[in-house]
Amino acid sequence: MREYNVAVLGATGAVGHRLVEQLELSDIPVKSLKLLASPRSAGEKLFFKGEEITVEVAEADSFEGIDLVLASAGGSVSKKFLPEAVKRGAVCVDNTSAFRMDPEVPLVVPEVNADQLQNHKGIIANPNCSTIQMVVALEPIREKFGLNRIVVSTYQAASGAGQTALNEFYQEAQDYLAGEEMQSNIYPTASDKKHYPLAFNLLPQIDVFEEDGYTHEEWKMIHETKKIMLDDMDASELKVTATCVRVPVAIGHGESVYFEINDDKATVHDLQAALTKAPGVVLQDSPSKQVYPQPIEAEGKRDTFVGRVRADSENPGAFHLWVVSDNLLKGAAWNTVQIAEELVKRDLVRVP
Amino acid sequence: MREYNVAVLGATGAVGHRLVEQLELSDIPVKSLKLLASPRSAGEKLFFKGEEITVEVAEADSFEGIDLVLASAGGSVSKKFLPEAVKRGAVCVDNTSAFRMDPEVPLVVPEVNADQLQNHKGIIANPNCSTIQMVVALEPIREKFGLNRIVVSTYQAASGAGQTALNEFYQEAQDYLAGEEMQSNIYPTASDKKHYPLAFNLLPQIDVFEEDGYTHEEWKMIHETKKIMLDDMDASELKVTATCVRVPVAIGHGESVYFEINDDKATVHDLQAALTKAPGVVLQDSPSKQVYPQPIEAEGKRDTFVGRVRADSENPGAFHLWVVSDNLLKGAAWNTVQIAEELVKRDLVRVP
Repeated sequence: MREYNVAVLGATGAVGHRLVEQLELSDIPVKSLKLLASPRSAGEKLFFKGEEITVEVAEADSFEGIDLVLASAGGSVSKKFLPEAVKRGAVCVDNTSAFRMDPEVPLVVPEVNADQLQNHKGIIANPNCSTIQMVVALEPIREKFGLNRIVVSTYQAASGAGQTALNEFYQEAQDYLAGEEMQSNIYPTASDKKHYPLAFNLLPQIDVFEEDGYTHEEWKMIHETKKIMLDDMDASELKVTATCVRVPVAIGHGESVYFEINDDKATVHDLQAALTKAPGVVLQDSPSKQVYPQPIEAEGKRDTFVGRVRADSENPGAFHLWVVSDNLLKGAAWNTVQIAEELVKRDLVRVP
Repeated sequence: MREYNVAVLGATGAVGHRLVEQLELSDIPVKSLKLLASPRSAGEKLFFKGEEITVEVAEADSFEGIDLVLASAGGSVSKKFLPEAVKRGAVCVDNTSAFRMDPEVPLVVPEVNADQLQNHKGIIANPNCSTIQMVVALEPIREKFGLNRIVVSTYQAASGAGQTALNEFYQEAQDYLAGEEMQSNIYPTASDKKHYPLAFNLLPQIDVFEEDGYTHEEWKMIHETKKIMLDDMDASELKVTATCVRVPVAIGHGESVYFEINDDKATVHDLQAALTKAPGVVLQDSPSKQVYPQPIEAEGKRDTFVGRVRADSENPGAFHLWVVSDNLLKGAAWNTVQIAEELVKRDLVRVP
């Protein structure tokens, strides 16, 4: 059996730690593990299968002899280092937005489009967290009934902005409860000019704004959903629009998904039946027993939880879903490792 | 000038306190104020214009000599006492759901349908909090461009469930931050069987479920919106569907509102212009300056804050809004007192 020399680029931070953890839990035969980060984070020590590993400074030559790279150190870091890694023979699964919309790069959610992996040229992109859980929930429905329109409103957790942001959020919450003023230096997004508290608040801005009034996050959901669900089909076959809101929850994104299918006869029961059989989906949908997805229940789990399947009583073929998943696992670290597992299973850990 | 003997039914609690406060700030000439509540809450003392008033136990005879009743003590209390008050000549503005869908009872948001007040037969209903702020934002758009469809996802604050629930929410947040287990006895709704923590969580249940999987809160938004915006028009002219979610915010509901107008040529700028002129609306919509509505900014204010006006790029005539308002003020106490102000202004404080 082939064993792999693996590197994690961006090993520190909320997603980085979980990448190492999910890799340890995975089926991937790891021969060696190298942990890489910026000079600022190098020196930190992490455990992998009982062995202590020191995080090293990432350089182009760090990827010599590496077979598989899992990257989550920011878009500019991926842009700089992943082509270097590919040049040295490594296949890279990238959790940043750097290559997602590159037509040469497969954008993969294994439950939806694992077959796209065979087209990789060295880099495979992991989608945005809010996109992943939505397509996992909608793909079994699209497959069976067709799908022509999505209107999604997100309820995205604090940890989506990273570990430092999450720490700021906890501090804000503590200050608020103590009756003190909240100090905000990160939310809604570190890279923008103004900062607002997230604790006990709602921030309808994730990432920066584009000229048209949409945020990057909203456009990511729109473009990535089409790329993942439609493969080579016409992008106009599925209309997608999104509103992304950061909410004062630590871990676990919620999504209120409204959608229209091509089958006007399908019932809520039909949709639930399709979801019950769907890979990666756990149907939690029993209103009479108050069973529905909640972030505090989803935390630490790999699945996408789906509930509140309801028909729009006035628009035939239109339905609602409520979708929750751990944004750091299925939304990031687990989906990345899951892609790597698929690459291993299909013997695709080689640069073509 | 006529002066009024006023009674507040349900004077204790989150909305009750604000009813007294908003009445004090209002233009209504108050001759006397009687504060009424259940035996459990009687005895509490509140200040009104510098005078201390003791809360009395509500009985049918409490309404003798009263001209105007502001009620917020729960549906069953309103059902029991308001007909008694009307019998004794008092006009009642009711903040419960008891009479909202009664065809004989006007359901009023003054910015939208104040003219309905002239049809009252003694009772006027105040709509549900989440409905009010949405119709305030959408009415100026409906008036100018027509409106045929609404898909709303709410982000509703903890205080919508009342003061005791809000206290539980704060306690949960404190326990969570201290690493202790959260004790939940109220959320999602006191009257249902199971209870879940709201702090650092999302609860896609507000009020109890109906057979079709919708919650009462969702049906309230659908039915009330049609009654308020359409008056005597055909309810099928405006399609409304809703998903209501409780979020860990103390005060201030957020709403992601997606809607379709009848005018395919209208632009974001046209909609913003209509909103700028609209009564009760404050447009906060400058993405490049990161200006958008936030609950912590809306708290304590009477206005409805609207921002993130955006066009759906793939569906002509379809748009997004993000709407925030203080659910205890415009969503409850202020709208109730505002209705009373309108009744006074129109000399309608008399049972016909």
